[in-house]
Amino acid sequence: MEVLILGGVAAGTKAAAKIKREMPEAKVTLVTKSGDVSYAGCGLPYYVGNVIRDKASLIVNTPQSFSDLTGVDVVTQMEAVAVDRAAKKVTARSVTSQEECVYSYDKLVIATGASPVKPPVDGTDLEGVYFMRTPQDAIAVREAVDCGSVKRAVVVGAGLIGLEVAENLAARNVMVSVIDMAPQILPGFDTEMAAYVENWLADHDIMTFTGTKLEAILGEGHVEKVKTGRRAMKADMVILSAGIRPNTGFLKDSGIELWPNGTVKVDEYLRTSDENIYAVGDCASVTNRLTGKTAWSPMGSSANMEGRIAARNICGEQVKYPGVLGTAVARLAGINVGRTGLNESDARQQGYDVITALCVVDDKASYYPGASNFIIKLVADKTTDQFLGLQVIGAGAVDKVVDIAVMALSMKAKVADMEDLDLSYAPPFSTAIHPLVTAVNVLKNKMSGRMDSITPAEYEAGKAKGFQIIDLGKVPSIDKALYVRLEDVKPGYDGLDKENPLLLVCTRGRRAYMSQVQLKASGYTNARVLEGGTSFNTIEDEEE
Amino acid sequence: MEVLILGGVAAGTKAAAKIKREMPEAKVTLVTKSGDVSYAGCGLPYYVGNVIRDKASLIVNTPQSFSDLTGVDVVTQMEAVAVDRAAKKVTARSVTSQEECVYSYDKLVIATGASPVKPPVDGTDLEGVYFMRTPQDAIAVREAVDCGSVKRAVVVGAGLIGLEVAENLAARNVMVSVIDMAPQILPGFDTEMAAYVENWLADHDIMTFTGTKLEAILGEGHVEKVKTGRRAMKADMVILSAGIRPNTGFLKDSGIELWPNGTVKVDEYLRTSDENIYAVGDCASVTNRLTGKTAWSPMGSSANMEGRIAARNICGEQVKYPGVLGTAVARLAGINVGRTGLNESDARQQGYDVITALCVVDDKASYYPGASNFIIKLVADKTTDQFLGLQVIGAGAVDKVVDIAVMALSMKAKVADMEDLDLSYAPPFSTAIHPLVTAVNVLKNKMSGRMDSITPAEYEAGKAKGFQIIDLGKVPSIDKALYVRLEDVKPGYDGLDKENPLLLVCTRGRRAYMSQVQLKASGYTNARVLEGGTSFNTIEDEEE
Repeated sequence: MEVLILGGVAAGTKAAAKIKREMPEAKVTLVTKSGDVSYAGCGLPYYVGNVIRDKASLIVNTPQSFSDLTGVDVVTQMEAVAVDRAAKKVTARSVTSQEECVYSYDKLVIATGASPVKPPVDGTDLEGVYFMRTPQDAIAVREAVDCGSVKRAVVVGAGLIGLEVAENLAARNVMVSVIDMAPQILPGFDTEMAAYVENWLADHDIMTFTGTKLEAILGEGHVEKVKTGRRAMKADMVILSAGIRPNTGFLKDSGIELWPNGTVKVDEYLRTSDENIYAVGDCASVTNRLTGKTAWSPMGSSANMEGRIAARNICGEQVKYPGVLGTAVARLAGINVGRTGLNESDARQQGYDVITALCVVDDKASYYPGASNFIIKLVADKTTDQFLGLQVIGAGAVDKVVDIAVMALSMKAKVADMEDLDLSYAPPFSTAIHPLVTAVNVLKNKMSGRMDSITPAEYEAGKAKGFQIIDLGKVPSIDKALYVRLEDVKPGYDGLDKENPLLLVCTRGRRAYMSQVQLKASGYTNARVLEGGTSFNTIEDEEE
Repeated sequence: MEVLILGGVAAGTKAAAKIKREMPEAKVTLVTKSGDVSYAGCGLPYYVGNVIRDKASLIVNTPQSFSDLTGVDVVTQMEAVAVDRAAKKVTARSVTSQEECVYSYDKLVIATGASPVKPPVDGTDLEGVYFMRTPQDAIAVREAVDCGSVKRAVVVGAGLIGLEVAENLAARNVMVSVIDMAPQILPGFDTEMAAYVENWLADHDIMTFTGTKLEAILGEGHVEKVKTGRRAMKADMVILSAGIRPNTGFLKDSGIELWPNGTVKVDEYLRTSDENIYAVGDCASVTNRLTGKTAWSPMGSSANMEGRIAARNICGEQVKYPGVLGTAVARLAGINVGRTGLNESDARQQGYDVITALCVVDDKASYYPGASNFIIKLVADKTTDQFLGLQVIGAGAVDKVVDIAVMALSMKAKVADMEDLDLSYAPPFSTAIHPLVTAVNVLKNKMSGRMDSITPAEYEAGKAKGFQIIDLGKVPSIDKALYVRLEDVKPGYDGLDKENPLLLVCTRGRRAYMSQVQLKASGYTNARVLEGGTSFNTIEDEEE
């Protein structure tokens, strides 16, 4: 059997190696446009920041070492230009000599990945303008920073990679601004979560400008300014990280079905519309594991799993790919962010009976050095109790919280399944009641009507307008709010007007909830807890 | 309604606070033998090590602050001595004045916890001999260390707390030995996992002596020597951490049913044999979530959950406690250990068709600073594919790996459910294929017969006796083994005797597996991979 793999980063190398391992007698050939195979795409921002010091670390395997290890034939710097399905042949063109070569196959794996979008504006070819997609990009950016000529950088695109690059440039003492056309940073996070991170980044010298369109990059030979829909910004460096496009142009006349966004259509076995052709990684769309709907999730982690599954199917198994959850995690200037499953806005769009809870909780025993907070937002369906998704922000192990949620979502867990979990606890690692379980308890209290609250998103949208703000912190901290000691709020408490709408605010939400319980028992009918308290929300003075 | 809570650390305070919150009109009284409530029992070893600097951090709430916050009446230094179920009354005796007092109840919660076992040998009352159960214990130990008089300490008991204390004493430059009667340290871990940690600790100046019985503590007034079944050890300090016993003596004549180990019998609602009496925390046995069998799991984390569930049931809900998984995690001298579910030996005892895999995998992108290894051991049932348990050792986030497994076990996941999970990945956090998924893939390869291997436990037991050791490392590292370059092992390879039993060994197991695939295809019938390679196993020279 002859197996041809097009593309040689994550999905392609994984598929090729696995096929050759399962079928040592097969002839497996990997053809790739790049000169490299198997490079550490997700590590590039950290090479810029000198966190990864050594250039060689970015290359997991050279073409030679990969071939030696696996027995796969590797052909580099050849770009696939056409697929002839009837003849089972692929034509590829040398990127150096332009000569063409034809490769035959019994089974074909398309793993050609995606390329960064070049914004359609003037000046993208100026010196000092870079992408962040290949080791060469990262090496060039670091060289420019190393030689000390970069004072100001503008990153175009406030997705995970753009923000990771911004963080790493800032760590090298470059003044960084990030612009994005979208109304928020961090696509895939809910607005209020993204806004929290925007504020955090601004406090840590990374300014983000959302709703800001790149209009041109200006300069004589070298970039000097970035013209935006808002105002011009001085810049010695521009990083273009404004999305990617699947490398599937060569399939146009092949008869292989594509989605409107250009990704390859595959079934649950990762097979295209041609049963002898599979597509995996950034060039293909798969399904969302929760909703079953089509999802483009161009991530290194899913690319690897997809490569492995296509390989197993080519080798005769019948393995279904369960799909992605949209999981993501990133380290950003002293704060980590993570998410999985549906966010609130996605969940509403999908028609779920959405309920959410936002919680600020200790990430480990509060007395243990380095303890900090997690901000956890849970999304669930109120009617079915189905757990739908989670977002988390914090200085600590957000990846842990995300991964527990991934396991729960993958098992289609109900919220009730996430109460009373025997999760690991010792003071260096967690809290006696696990932070995720605490958040689940809050969500359950909300679902059962025990807690009546206003979410940060609702508060931002004006839902607490006209409410009297009651400050229930350990010490008073809100200007113009009425301060009430929690210890004084006992059954029968009548220090406030019982019909008046009250907004109960403390640092995180816990003391506000405890007071609400007492107030309800004392006949208060209209007191609401502000979820996330002053830790998450900015409390504005109300004109009473 | 009158609710009486006996005991005021984790389970007791949690139950009391929740009941008072749910039923503000109820009279909730908490009676405890100690002068403190709600202290950080799991933090005590870290106070000894000066990791937790401040004494006040050990006290989560004082009796007064707890009472102010919750509305619960708190009575300290009163020890329950009898329960009269017919009259619904509890008699308690003052630990200072010996005066007795009677408390009535409608509902009673027993949360009296457990006390350290005092070994029945001479010398336990000498100066310099301590327990590690209360803040006073930790404060006294640290004072002794602070004043510089402690050069050598012996810890009796190699469970988690004993080892945590040992680590913290070693960090204070005390020479520490740990002795335990049991044949291994870390009860609940499989033998070979415990042995690995024993070796690690020895390399980090903590000597453990297993199978070693405490015979006496010797000294004139102050401890000078510890006499053991093996030999005497000089010591200025002895920490007794050799198990705990439930504080249930006062229930002897109450008619409340106890287990032979003295813990209180409860049903799935945490109700005792008397429907008005609940028992929670270290004094009660619950069930194992996986097997449904009775389990005593005296941990702070489950105590909190049990307190909460008993409270909900007393307040009128019908909530079942799903039980524990035996989850545990600890930081030990630069290495972390964690476990959940059944270990191999438990699983065999329970009659499962046990299969295991031991894997050494990167804990994050290998090029990222601080990257290290996880040693992951998975236990599953081969017939049903049910996932049964996990143990993990590593410098990094073992708690994350454990917690994903906890979620999986709680959902009764099959091993197949743990393949292809969309877990979080970015270089600072994990690997593109998640370490747990890699381990699952190895287990699956073993289950499907793709990989034929010898486990470290089997190797230790002599199963590879007579095998020719083939060193497949990147560079030769095993004396007297035949070194073979993986790159040379191709289809048709005939450099070795095809019928000879071969033990394929590399650093971790991956290269050995890759070579096995090729060797099988070349007609080798008797080559086995050594799981965990030289990272985990000590390879002994074979006499051929």
